[in-house]
Amino acid sequence: MSVTAVYNVTGMTCGHCEKAVTEEVSALPGVAEVKADAAGGTVTVVSENPLEEDAVRAAVDEAGYELTGRV
Amino acid sequence: MSVTAVYNVTGMTCGHCEKAVTEEVSALPGVAEVKADAAGGTVTVVSENPLEEDAVRAAVDEAGYELTGRV
Repeated sequence: MSVTAVYNVTGMTCGHCEKAVTEEVSALPGVAEVKADAAGGTVTVVSENPLEEDAVRAAVDEAGYELTGRV
Repeated sequence: MSVTAVYNVTGMTCGHCEKAVTEEVSALPGVAEVKADAAGGTVTVVSENPLEEDAVRAAVDEAGYELTGRV
C-alpha cells in the first residue's frame, strides 16, 4: 500500500525549482516518489505511510519554498 | 585590462537559472567574472579579451536559455 498526498507550494518558477523541492522531499523517510509542478504550484508525494505535514513543510522550506497546505 | 559585456538572455526565472547560466559562461576560456540577473534578463561577463558572441550564446544555450543580443 502507499499513500498519495498533494500539497500547495508557492515560489517555484522553473524546472530547477522543481528539482530542488523534489530532492529535499525525496530525502524524507518513507517517501517513494515525488512530483513537483511549478506551473501548478503543487508537489505530489507518494509514501509508504501518511507523512507528517510539518515534515514535508520543513523539507520544502529547506529547498527555499513555502508549503501552504494540502490540496 | 578587462572587457565587460552585457547580454540579453531570455528564460531565466530564478536564482537556480542564474546559477546555471553563470556556471556555463564561467567555463568559457578567458572569462573572469559572470553575473546573471534573472529579473533584468541580463548576463554581465568580464573577460580578459573580447569574447566571440557566438561562444557566449552557445554557453547560454547549453544552460537552457537564449542569448538574444548585446545590451
